[in-house]
Amino acid sequence: MRIGVFDSGIGGLTVLRTLADALPGHDLIYLGDTARVPYGTRSPQTVVRYSLRVASYLYEQDVGALVIACNTATTWAMDALQRAGQAVGVPVFGVVTPGVTAALKVHKNTAIAVLGTEGTIAGGAYQRGLAEAHAGVTVVPVACPLFVPLAEEGWLTGDVPRGIAEHYLSDLGGRVDTAILGCTHYPLLRSVIAQALPGVTLVDSAQETANVVLAELGPGTTTDRTIRFLVTDHVERFQRVGATFFGTEPTQVTWVDLPEPSGEFTASPERS
Amino acid sequence: MRIGVFDSGIGGLTVLRTLADALPGHDLIYLGDTARVPYGTRSPQTVVRYSLRVASYLYEQDVGALVIACNTATTWAMDALQRAGQAVGVPVFGVVTPGVTAALKVHKNTAIAVLGTEGTIAGGAYQRGLAEAHAGVTVVPVACPLFVPLAEEGWLTGDVPRGIAEHYLSDLGGRVDTAILGCTHYPLLRSVIAQALPGVTLVDSAQETANVVLAELGPGTTTDRTIRFLVTDHVERFQRVGATFFGTEPTQVTWVDLPEPSGEFTASPERS
Repeated sequence: MRIGVFDSGIGGLTVLRTLADALPGHDLIYLGDTARVPYGTRSPQTVVRYSLRVASYLYEQDVGALVIACNTATTWAMDALQRAGQAVGVPVFGVVTPGVTAALKVHKNTAIAVLGTEGTIAGGAYQRGLAEAHAGVTVVPVACPLFVPLAEEGWLTGDVPRGIAEHYLSDLGGRVDTAILGCTHYPLLRSVIAQALPGVTLVDSAQETANVVLAELGPGTTTDRTIRFLVTDHVERFQRVGATFFGTEPTQVTWVDLPEPSGEFTASPERS
Repeated sequence: MRIGVFDSGIGGLTVLRTLADALPGHDLIYLGDTARVPYGTRSPQTVVRYSLRVASYLYEQDVGALVIACNTATTWAMDALQRAGQAVGVPVFGVVTPGVTAALKVHKNTAIAVLGTEGTIAGGAYQRGLAEAHAGVTVVPVACPLFVPLAEEGWLTGDVPRGIAEHYLSDLGGRVDTAILGCTHYPLLRSVIAQALPGVTLVDSAQETANVVLAELGPGTTTDRTIRFLVTDHVERFQRVGATFFGTEPTQVTWVDLPEPSGEFTASPERS
């Protein structure tokens, strides 16, 4: 089967990397919507509009399943994407529910922190997911907007990354035993996040997402599987910055024109 | 006259503020393309496409002049925007040439640094502008990608902003006497930039841009001028974050749908 993996940009490559290891017998096609990244500061309606456009393009590429490797897109667009997927018979997986499951496995007795972009935190999908799965659990959401540009710059250690992590996280000390890395960029900053949260178990949704997809689709049967990459802007920047996220430099990267749909969502982001 | 002012997002409000003071007798209409911000990491073709779309919308609003209050858009799209402006008889002003003029006024005898986003630095418009205006001047370009998210978070002082400024700028010590703040966000970080560059004169294009527009258009004659704001995403975020840039919270903010043109630029950003 060909599995489509979609992210607003580069961060989803951490998820793709885990999927590639866990499902060696499926072709993978990754679409990074780099012309419209970041989704994290955009309005819900804009994220839904962009996500449906990308998904529709991947359906045209004959994907048999779709993984939304982007926390913001999962947060705002999961329902719309699942409805669109049902209409064409394609199962859709997000990263939030697996992240919730993984966090509850390791959670002990205090609170669970959710670290994410402004959009993911404001969307509250992790907060709702945790509350539904474990009534009464205390959740502390923390928006960490500088982590994404920091990770994209590859500036992962030293005083400044540590200072930024402490700025966002030092208040959590002693109050939480588990923290969900609710953004696909954050695993790159795991070391400074761990230093700012001593004794706290960090949860990365990627592995649990791969487990869920594996349980549903099986490991696949293709012996010479391919991994292809599509981006909506700069091929060169995607390859250069993406190497840090994917482990090796992405090859077979193609630019695709993906103009926005017009007229479908005309209500104001603030009003509808 | 109604003057259109265009930026990829919020940073251009520092230019608008200066224009508002310098030209009290003109109506101003600001368009922040917040659904597509940041332009700084996008390919030249994408920036040209977005910029023409925004300009065309402002021409429909009957602007008599257009100020591109965005260094990346000026860098890549100035020629295309001037041609489009000529076609409808609207003069177009950018921020790069005024920044060059202002830098050469204060420049002494070593080199001039240009600080900007990845896109502005890669585009080289300041480097070319300085070389054309003053043959033989040495220019040191420095990309400072974390300054924009830092300014948007309003995190302007303290160890982390100082550490980030030192990271980008400490190598310049003694080598330059002048530094152009080649991004409209950077004036907010003037204090930590100045600390990292002792003895260096910092140049902000905004004031010189306002001088050029004033010389061309005059101060205007409207006695009850209006300042309106249009954004392509989140009204609320623009108002909240914009207050730091504009000095007061922008009022009269309207969301506009500005779907991308399709089919006009179909060549790959890497190939054309």
